[in-house]
Amino acid sequence: MNVVLIYSGGLDSTVLLYHLRNEGHEVRTLTVDYGQRHVREIESAGRIAERLGCEHRLADLRSITSLLGGSSLTSTEVQVPDGHYAEETMKATVVPNRNMIMLSVAAGWAIASKCDAVAFAAHSGDHAIYPDCRSEFADALAAAIRLADWHEVTLIRPFVALTKAEIVKKGAALGVQFADTWSCYKGGALHCGRCGTCIERREAFQLAGVDDPTAYAPTAPGLDELILNNWRLQP
Amino acid sequence: MNVVLIYSGGLDSTVLLYHLRNEGHEVRTLTVDYGQRHVREIESAGRIAERLGCEHRLADLRSITSLLGGSSLTSTEVQVPDGHYAEETMKATVVPNRNMIMLSVAAGWAIASKCDAVAFAAHSGDHAIYPDCRSEFADALAAAIRLADWHEVTLIRPFVALTKAEIVKKGAALGVQFADTWSCYKGGALHCGRCGTCIERREAFQLAGVDDPTAYAPTAPGLDELILNNWRLQP
Repeated sequence: MNVVLIYSGGLDSTVLLYHLRNEGHEVRTLTVDYGQRHVREIESAGRIAERLGCEHRLADLRSITSLLGGSSLTSTEVQVPDGHYAEETMKATVVPNRNMIMLSVAAGWAIASKCDAVAFAAHSGDHAIYPDCRSEFADALAAAIRLADWHEVTLIRPFVALTKAEIVKKGAALGVQFADTWSCYKGGALHCGRCGTCIERREAFQLAGVDDPTAYAPTAPGLDELILNNWRLQP
Repeated sequence: MNVVLIYSGGLDSTVLLYHLRNEGHEVRTLTVDYGQRHVREIESAGRIAERLGCEHRLADLRSITSLLGGSSLTSTEVQVPDGHYAEETMKATVVPNRNMIMLSVAAGWAIASKCDAVAFAAHSGDHAIYPDCRSEFADALAAAIRLADWHEVTLIRPFVALTKAEIVKKGAALGVQFADTWSCYKGGALHCGRCGTCIERREAFQLAGVDDPTAYAPTAPGLDELILNNWRLQP
């Protein structure tokens, strides 16, 4: 198949990129700049796609950031909370309708370039605080994407039943260079090691029994401390 | 209700703007710049919204135009065809997934600003050549928009059962200043009077029995000629 992959340069979508290519698909990658402060992930995306010889395009949607209000992902005036995703405070990281916006642009590119599918790396651990990570949302949007053109495009989520730890295992088997991927929401020089997405990343390596090559900031709490503070490791 | 209206500055969405306000709704308007050559419609939108005292925002999505390929609406290298919409050549005016892209941004704004609904001016004459003008597409997308956030947003299409002539009649009753609206795809100084959307506009006034105040280019064929050439007036 010819596939347009929503590609953030993060761990999940990088493993999905390797996975799709390993399955024999032709993949082109789309990174959306929605004004995220963690611009590092955009650089990671470009670098990894280039190394793999995949077409990589950037959709600059920064003009709509102000319409979508003050998420901590896009505004330096709102702090990225520390702690586990499960905590109420992580709601500050919601960007309204982000997934539909990214998927609609990807579907437009897929239609224009006669691709068969749009892929994104939703997984089973995507969180109750992100309403547009729900399966029923993706199912409804998949139906709309199928109807958006006479040329039918399928929305695929190959990792929807996997945990993040299982994605790490799969990535290790595929030879993914994890150190090149970027997760941290804060967008510093190193992964902070304490925001929701950093904790999830660290947990996933730990649970997968895969060595975590990520360079975390010196101020990141240790894994023992995370557990003690109820920043829990999920099964 | 608080409503975000997808607002092109064209005839249909201008009548819908007047209609929604007349029904007592609070309306904010969103114009999407997707690189359309008829930039005149964006100017019309801003002017009319300002006159009515409605908030008007512009989403600049020009960076994605190249992803969406060469539509005659966005590329000066592809000619806007003359003639009635029903003709095969009008397929050159399709912008892949345009409606989903615009509606997803509008829904993001509606969620962020706690609006109740997103409105767009789809009508019964929207054309078989535009797959994303089909009702089944809008129904599927409406389901996805409802699920995109915990704050539920409804997609409304108040004109979905109306012909364009009926929209003109409604606009006349509401005191719409039609001369301020812009339809022509070609984006010249005057409406060309011969592209699909100009012919549809002229037909609608004729069928509605409402005086058409639009200034058409001197090269526009007369209405008699349109009929003779099978650029037909539809019931």
